[in-house]
Amino acid sequence: MTLDQLLRSRRSIRSYQPREVGDTLITEILDLARYAPSSMNSQPCCFVVIRNADAKRRLALLKNAYCPREKRAYAADFLATAPVVVAVCVEKGRAHDRERENGVLATAHLLLAAHQRGLGGVYLSAYQPHDGALAAGISRELGLPPEVDPVTLVPLGFPAETPPAKEMRPLADLIHHERWAPGELTRV
Amino acid sequence: MTLDQLLRSRRSIRSYQPREVGDTLITEILDLARYAPSSMNSQPCCFVVIRNADAKRRLALLKNAYCPREKRAYAADFLATAPVVVAVCVEKGRAHDRERENGVLATAHLLLAAHQRGLGGVYLSAYQPHDGALAAGISRELGLPPEVDPVTLVPLGFPAETPPAKEMRPLADLIHHERWAPGELTRV
Repeated sequence: MTLDQLLRSRRSIRSYQPREVGDTLITEILDLARYAPSSMNSQPCCFVVIRNADAKRRLALLKNAYCPREKRAYAADFLATAPVVVAVCVEKGRAHDRERENGVLATAHLLLAAHQRGLGGVYLSAYQPHDGALAAGISRELGLPPEVDPVTLVPLGFPAETPPAKEMRPLADLIHHERWAPGELTRV
Repeated sequence: MTLDQLLRSRRSIRSYQPREVGDTLITEILDLARYAPSSMNSQPCCFVVIRNADAKRRLALLKNAYCPREKRAYAADFLATAPVVVAVCVEKGRAHDRERENGVLATAHLLLAAHQRGLGGVYLSAYQPHDGALAAGISRELGLPPEVDPVTLVPLGFPAETPPAKEMRPLADLIHHERWAPGELTRV
């Protein structure tokens, strides 16, 4: 697929075939993820690759324990069913006060590299915006040192679902020229 | 180029040819950027396309005024020389408390779509992590309503520089299996 096709067709995948996802494939994807833009090219991202079934179950429980009310429909139980979970982490000493941004950029590249290889995944935050409890729990689970923060959890596997194409907001509503053009902001 | 080649070869470009960048090209890129993952597929991102020379100069001054000491080598004067600057913004009412993450993901897609078309750009934050002054200044400049926050500024143009390939940290230092493997964390 071309880049345009990959960008348009990537969907969040929460159901996976039991088919194994080899280390070679994961290494290829992480090799590409590290090329994401980073603050002053400091490359602060690192990755923990989790395959252990109990560890994946504990991560799912942690995500569920801190799930905001409005996202309850997206319970993280499926996390335990993914062949592989990648935790994208950031070395704070390298991140120039932009830990989260750097981790999010690497995750965007990771998801595209996975999609290009026929793998499905979904972006899950490894922290709450205003409370350190979820990140602390994940750090404990992964044995992260205090200098390293988890940013995202990305379950990966060959898809066992084919979501329909996304319904997109009209492009014309999203583009403004020079200054914000007044218009109604619609709530979801 | 394949996706892998695009991910590896994208560099931050801060020097631009005066050659015009048409609206059709910008619209194509923003059309793709909006397909980035978003919280509960709420698609909260919107874009302000800035071509006015005075406005670009004022944005550069704002970025410089709030530039952290350690990033002074990356003064934003070049922002005023880009044919186009895109401000990636987020409608807070749609973002499920993840404004920044949603904006960063769309920016990652935007930069790749631009690179695929031969355009260069660079990721610039439109806010400081712990102080609202830069974001407030940019919001005033762009006339953003209170419900909309700026997340990034991306200057775009045909490159007038060809940076060498990135020197990458060794991949083996970045990948851990199951749990963090103790090792020395190097500072940049």
